[in-house]
Amino acid sequence: MGEVKLIATTQSLFCTRVEWALKLKGVEYEFIEEEDLRNKSPLLLKYNPVHKKVPLLLHHGKPIAESLVILEYIEETWKENPLLPQDPYERALARFWAQFLGDKCVFGAWEAAHKAEGEEKTKAIESAQESLAFLEKQIAGKKYFGGEEIGFLDIVAGWIPHWLSVMEEVGGMKLLEAEKFPLLHEWAHNFIQIPLIRECIPPREKLLDYFNASISYMRSLATNKQ
Amino acid sequence: MGEVKLIATTQSLFCTRVEWALKLKGVEYEFIEEEDLRNKSPLLLKYNPVHKKVPLLLHHGKPIAESLVILEYIEETWKENPLLPQDPYERALARFWAQFLGDKCVFGAWEAAHKAEGEEKTKAIESAQESLAFLEKQIAGKKYFGGEEIGFLDIVAGWIPHWLSVMEEVGGMKLLEAEKFPLLHEWAHNFIQIPLIRECIPPREKLLDYFNASISYMRSLATNKQ
Repeated sequence: MGEVKLIATTQSLFCTRVEWALKLKGVEYEFIEEEDLRNKSPLLLKYNPVHKKVPLLLHHGKPIAESLVILEYIEETWKENPLLPQDPYERALARFWAQFLGDKCVFGAWEAAHKAEGEEKTKAIESAQESLAFLEKQIAGKKYFGGEEIGFLDIVAGWIPHWLSVMEEVGGMKLLEAEKFPLLHEWAHNFIQIPLIRECIPPREKLLDYFNASISYMRSLATNKQ
Repeated sequence: MGEVKLIATTQSLFCTRVEWALKLKGVEYEFIEEEDLRNKSPLLLKYNPVHKKVPLLLHHGKPIAESLVILEYIEETWKENPLLPQDPYERALARFWAQFLGDKCVFGAWEAAHKAEGEEKTKAIESAQESLAFLEKQIAGKKYFGGEEIGFLDIVAGWIPHWLSVMEEVGGMKLLEAEKFPLLHEWAHNFIQIPLIRECIPPREKLLDYFNASISYMRSLATNKQ
């Protein structure tokens, strides 16, 4: 099926989504690490002039950007091991929750993590937990979001077991409380045990360094604004 | 194919996307006007408890939210008159630019419109025009984004001829300058001439009232913040 390259950073949860999908489909690819996001590579600037962001998939030299768009492309190009359900309504639900996971859950958790202690942080934690509560309902009665096997939505939610716990640590808070979210908690535990999933996750120490640096930066911006 | 209902407001460009898709597919539907977005109907709150937003499609009583998710659902459920290209790479491009149109172009135009005169407005206008410039390149050599016939991306960009000109008027600015964006300008002219497209657009006076009220509200918020 031609040459596949992935321009990505190991610490980005959006990049790891794509790696998981490629591995689940059994697609061989070359991983090209984007070393420094403050000083972007000519390759990234050439192929993603619009957003200048990773992940970027190159297939036969043609670029595809935005993680959810890439996942749909992978699904349509390599048909084996379908990630999306077959039924149009189930597909619509997977797409809806995938969007929600990025817009509300990732963004919400990050908001809660980087705010300094105070009223704003408390509100951000409440808001992030409201989003997780919607997600909790989606997993009821299933082992994975995809059913008995992992699928599209599991991949998109897959940052929760690893990245969220790092955000919790650096942000000095707990979002995914086991008593509040027993189903998500169990799902996270099951998901992260899968060898193919574990293979792609970055070392915890590296993520801690990355998020600690990001939080310091965000807080310095907030202080300068005041 | 069962009962189809669309909960929507006539002034929302996100709702009109869905109406266009249904009409292009020849799908009969009942339009249920959501009268007052500040006082949402029990129907909307019941079926879209997550975002509480229009448009909401009900098919056989099952709800689908988010305009791009609804468009994909319509495409997969009613196969006649395909909106997306067949080639996976072309489909990925359509999805990428559809996302861009919402995140950057709609949002960018609205930012530029509601800011009061000053440095921030000038910057917002520049930024919105940078986004339009990316879009201008996508239409080069084609009558429509979809080629000879309108497709997915035309529907998603379809707010430009009508809604953007209203935003320009209420915002006291010009974004889609004919000299800067000759191809988009011509596309907009061609698109809005199509009878089926014209049928669904709200009266200009109604949109003007709506956007004038929205701008007054945004500016009062900005003034209270200072």
